[in-house]
Amino acid sequence: MIHKLIEKIKKTNAPVVAGLDPMLSYIPEHILKKSYEQYGETLEGAADAVWQFNKGIIDSIYDLIPAVKPQIAMYEQFGIEGMKAFQKTVDYCHEKDLVVIGDIKRGDIGSTSAAYAAGHLGKVTAGSRTYSAFNEDFATVNPYLGSDGIQPFIDVCKEEKKGLFILVKTSNPSSGEFQDRLTGGRPLYEYVGEKVAEWGAQHMGDDYSYIGAVVGATYPEAGKIMRRLMPKTYILVPGYGAQGGKGADLVHYFNEDGLGAIVNSSRGIIAAYKLEQYAHFSPENYADASRQAVLDMTADIQGALQQRK
Amino acid sequence: MIHKLIEKIKKTNAPVVAGLDPMLSYIPEHILKKSYEQYGETLEGAADAVWQFNKGIIDSIYDLIPAVKPQIAMYEQFGIEGMKAFQKTVDYCHEKDLVVIGDIKRGDIGSTSAAYAAGHLGKVTAGSRTYSAFNEDFATVNPYLGSDGIQPFIDVCKEEKKGLFILVKTSNPSSGEFQDRLTGGRPLYEYVGEKVAEWGAQHMGDDYSYIGAVVGATYPEAGKIMRRLMPKTYILVPGYGAQGGKGADLVHYFNEDGLGAIVNSSRGIIAAYKLEQYAHFSPENYADASRQAVLDMTADIQGALQQRK
Repeated sequence: MIHKLIEKIKKTNAPVVAGLDPMLSYIPEHILKKSYEQYGETLEGAADAVWQFNKGIIDSIYDLIPAVKPQIAMYEQFGIEGMKAFQKTVDYCHEKDLVVIGDIKRGDIGSTSAAYAAGHLGKVTAGSRTYSAFNEDFATVNPYLGSDGIQPFIDVCKEEKKGLFILVKTSNPSSGEFQDRLTGGRPLYEYVGEKVAEWGAQHMGDDYSYIGAVVGATYPEAGKIMRRLMPKTYILVPGYGAQGGKGADLVHYFNEDGLGAIVNSSRGIIAAYKLEQYAHFSPENYADASRQAVLDMTADIQGALQQRK
Repeated sequence: MIHKLIEKIKKTNAPVVAGLDPMLSYIPEHILKKSYEQYGETLEGAADAVWQFNKGIIDSIYDLIPAVKPQIAMYEQFGIEGMKAFQKTVDYCHEKDLVVIGDIKRGDIGSTSAAYAAGHLGKVTAGSRTYSAFNEDFATVNPYLGSDGIQPFIDVCKEEKKGLFILVKTSNPSSGEFQDRLTGGRPLYEYVGEKVAEWGAQHMGDDYSYIGAVVGATYPEAGKIMRRLMPKTYILVPGYGAQGGKGADLVHYFNEDGLGAIVNSSRGIIAAYKLEQYAHFSPENYADASRQAVLDMTADIQGALQQRK
């Protein structure tokens, strides 16, 4: 799956991930109205609106990007109906040949991590038959519990040729409270990153490991250091756009080969029609605004990478 | 909800949580057979077996304990059908007046943590109507992302009078990889614990905060230290039984008032009939074995607490 991700990045020339994190407040009125008319003002109605909104965006941008990253919390909040919309979204993205990074930030120990891994990346058995449940291609994972929490995910990834992005340095303002604490003279996240590189050595593609890391766009200095400490680790970079990151800040997350990082934008893509810059797109044409936002983001990042050369 | 938890602990005299973490391998053949006959060897069949197994145990032990802790991974692995079994389990435990601790170990930032909090502890809005989705009473949360990840959960908890248990020092062998790293001369988990106490001050019950901590039974020295550093924090203690913890190791997790900690056992209760000690219970009577295991665990912990006096 890391091969597919890299191939698609090369083909689209876009190291860009669209974060499918739909809030109801992002969804244009005409979609909400239709879903509520059909299913009532219910969890089913809300989940249908989420799915219809996603579908519009996916249809509009799938040829431009290698991957999407649905944030499961935005679906899970609507309970079972929301989880169905999550599953529909994953399946539909696969129909469009997109790589799906499940932003699930799970993490537990032993058989519990194994259960998360089976449900999201692998297979489960019922009697004599096996099934894939949510079936993402990559999943984000929280490292706080150490190797016991990560290894069961890696075991499933090896079997399924799938991958992970493990939280190293997150993009939010308070990420430093624990992640930046100095230990042995260095911030904790450096140790986590070195551990990610170590874990990743178990499951290598050609030039990059299937086991990646998350390093936020809002901490470019950390990106520079982590690029050096984890040369074969793909870095998933959240925090572009709405959270403040710009293409020029991100060049050091990439290796000299122009690979090694993939930048996520959520609100900046899926709710682009709400930004001043794209206000000429009407809410009815929200998906066209998303397409323009992807093109602009790709140009911004590629421009910055070209300038580095 | 912290009031209810404490009241029920006093009433049952059992600071005990039953971990509803059903693996298919724990489920007696007669239950599996019936579910597969009814729904086929499908995800629906597996999820039904999980639910039937849980129901038997809940019916057998609900009067002995204050709370249950379903581990959502064990349900999520079966996809949508598994999530339905999770929801049924939560609802049924509420019918039996049990406090439900959702062991979800979620953690993200800002609006994403808010979405998890809404879906598991709070309410979501669809048009002009509001709904509770999964509706647990407490949830476990991962602190790696710092205050940005925790505050949205606390905000919902305040509104709903619900609570959290935040991971501080987990019970697994590799928990020390990051949690024990020395920073300022002390292990990281002490800083996390102090932060939990600080967060907890925002949302106090009478003597204890709604915001608790997880400290594993397998690290009794950590339990002793954390008890002192977080005097008003309820400690959820995993790792009893199957993971190696015993009542005598746990007295220092409790305050002088005999409160302040609640000990979880999963496999040791729900799969008790598979242990040598309870082998005289047949698989058909697995729920009776669970009841005996709860009684024995309660006696072990109460005995140890009495000896301390």
